[in-house]
Amino acid sequence: MTNNTNDVLSEPEIQVNKKLIDDTIINFLPKTHSIQEIDLLYNMMRDYPLRPAKGIRSSICLFTCQAFGGQVNDALLTASSLELFQNWILIHDDIEDESEFRRGQPVLHRKHTIPLAINAGDSLHGRMWSLLQNNHSLLGADITLNIIDEFINMLNETTEGQHMELSWSNTNDWDISQDDYFIMCTKKTSWYTCITPFRLGNMIANKHTIDENKFVEFGTNLGIAFQIRDDILNLTADGKYGKEYAGDLIEGKRTLILIHLLESCNNSDREFIESFFNNNREFREGNYQQLLDLIYKYKSLDYATNICNELSEKALTEFNNIFSDLPDTRARLLLNNITKYMVSRNW
Amino acid sequence: MTNNTNDVLSEPEIQVNKKLIDDTIINFLPKTHSIQEIDLLYNMMRDYPLRPAKGIRSSICLFTCQAFGGQVNDALLTASSLELFQNWILIHDDIEDESEFRRGQPVLHRKHTIPLAINAGDSLHGRMWSLLQNNHSLLGADITLNIIDEFINMLNETTEGQHMELSWSNTNDWDISQDDYFIMCTKKTSWYTCITPFRLGNMIANKHTIDENKFVEFGTNLGIAFQIRDDILNLTADGKYGKEYAGDLIEGKRTLILIHLLESCNNSDREFIESFFNNNREFREGNYQQLLDLIYKYKSLDYATNICNELSEKALTEFNNIFSDLPDTRARLLLNNITKYMVSRNW
Repeated sequence: MTNNTNDVLSEPEIQVNKKLIDDTIINFLPKTHSIQEIDLLYNMMRDYPLRPAKGIRSSICLFTCQAFGGQVNDALLTASSLELFQNWILIHDDIEDESEFRRGQPVLHRKHTIPLAINAGDSLHGRMWSLLQNNHSLLGADITLNIIDEFINMLNETTEGQHMELSWSNTNDWDISQDDYFIMCTKKTSWYTCITPFRLGNMIANKHTIDENKFVEFGTNLGIAFQIRDDILNLTADGKYGKEYAGDLIEGKRTLILIHLLESCNNSDREFIESFFNNNREFREGNYQQLLDLIYKYKSLDYATNICNELSEKALTEFNNIFSDLPDTRARLLLNNITKYMVSRNW
Repeated sequence: MTNNTNDVLSEPEIQVNKKLIDDTIINFLPKTHSIQEIDLLYNMMRDYPLRPAKGIRSSICLFTCQAFGGQVNDALLTASSLELFQNWILIHDDIEDESEFRRGQPVLHRKHTIPLAINAGDSLHGRMWSLLQNNHSLLGADITLNIIDEFINMLNETTEGQHMELSWSNTNDWDISQDDYFIMCTKKTSWYTCITPFRLGNMIANKHTIDENKFVEFGTNLGIAFQIRDDILNLTADGKYGKEYAGDLIEGKRTLILIHLLESCNNSDREFIESFFNNNREFREGNYQQLLDLIYKYKSLDYATNICNELSEKALTEFNNIFSDLPDTRARLLLNNITKYMVSRNW
């Protein structure tokens, strides 16, 4: 195994599992329909799932299941449903955030209009529950209902987090503390990226519910660190990253970087920043370099990197606490490396 | 009991059940949150459920359950979830259709912006599954999963129907046959308004799955007749109706009325119709009276009324076939009157 955590996703076991997940999703989603309009809907539902993605959430679920002594096959439908969750909610998020690119291609609503994309997101959302229902014959009724419970909780948290972030943009509210940001991140990112995937893997291995707090503190810290890393990459990454470079600045996203900048800057710089965000998208696309210069001037990227590192260390310590009693398996090692990758990745 | 089917919804038993459903929903949805942004989200989720609505779908589910010998209480969560389905999907439909009013008030996205409304719809969607999950302790795991299956199927059909209708508007396609319209209506309206509510009521009373075709032909005909009646009311109803008068013409909805008009009109009238729909919303808001005149000239409202009546008769015959073996209960009588109301209503 390589020592470079940025290569962890090319480990053969991770690739094998990713192929299983991709195949499960593509075999499950409907392919063609004799009515051409519905055929287009099916096409739209497969669009994001067919774009290259890392599959971190499904990998966490599968390897956690294995690390706790479960079988990959038992977690396959659930892990695939986590990817479907990510796919349908991204369709809606891309509309809500007015994003332009996703996974290196135009967002779905730019290809097919907003009305069709909202509806395709809802349709794909329905398919997610349908795939989860297939757990019934595999794992039995009770555990299937427990898994559905976890998904409902994850969806509640995610939409609350997304609502917080959208509200800030909507009311042009920049009076946001770092704590506000951490709560928003926990809801918007930590639950569906970390807490729930780990919980589901453990639950499926145990074939039983788990304590309601298990993985919550660990996953919260890991998820926030992951999100901060994502915010940093948006301003530093190269082509492999897949989203619009500096898109967060153009979309006016409240990141830890910007919150730190606003807490640190002098009045005249603050005036520029506020006027930048009061201007339209076209202006922001043409003038974000000045904002970037301020971010460097006030070392806001460094600040965010330090917080990301602190939270990562906490998360990795908690990882060891949770997993140290388990057998020293390849699954546990890979899971540990995925965790490290999430907070130090270059793409 | 009154003989006027338009008054059926004011029957005391229907009012009592409607209050039970409204209370179930309002007690279930989260009320307040200490974070003010999330408090607003909760407010948005309760908005449509708190607006006056007829509650036809939940009534069908409850009275079908009773007619088949089941208890109202057993169907209460499921019937309430049908109303939640209606509420969250209307939030998204109103965006997709660019509607202006819903139940006599501005649509949700006009009050709170499109991004917040898409997300609130998703959040309410999540709550629907959560309410359904509460059936677990009431009815047991197996029947709960069967109910969820019915909801998934209903959602698949509804989004396919909505997609068909949106695609026609999107591509400005007026080359639509009456059969295309009937398929679209079956998917968009019949499933969630008729087929699934009847099926769920029967299933909960039986405490077992029912034949996959049961209520499908009946509910298809009833649902299409209901939709045609809705299309007619959009051009004839008074203030009680709650939606924008002639909104269907302004939104360019493919109704049976318009399909008949296009099949019947001469070339110069067709040219006007096409130019009307090629024009922007403002033009259509100012000029729909001319289109309405053509609808009267070619008797397209009469044609639609006749088809509505034919389908209604079929549906009522099928109602008798399905329900005639059951005891002659008040629930069966009310259900029959609701069915009659759906296809002859004035609001």
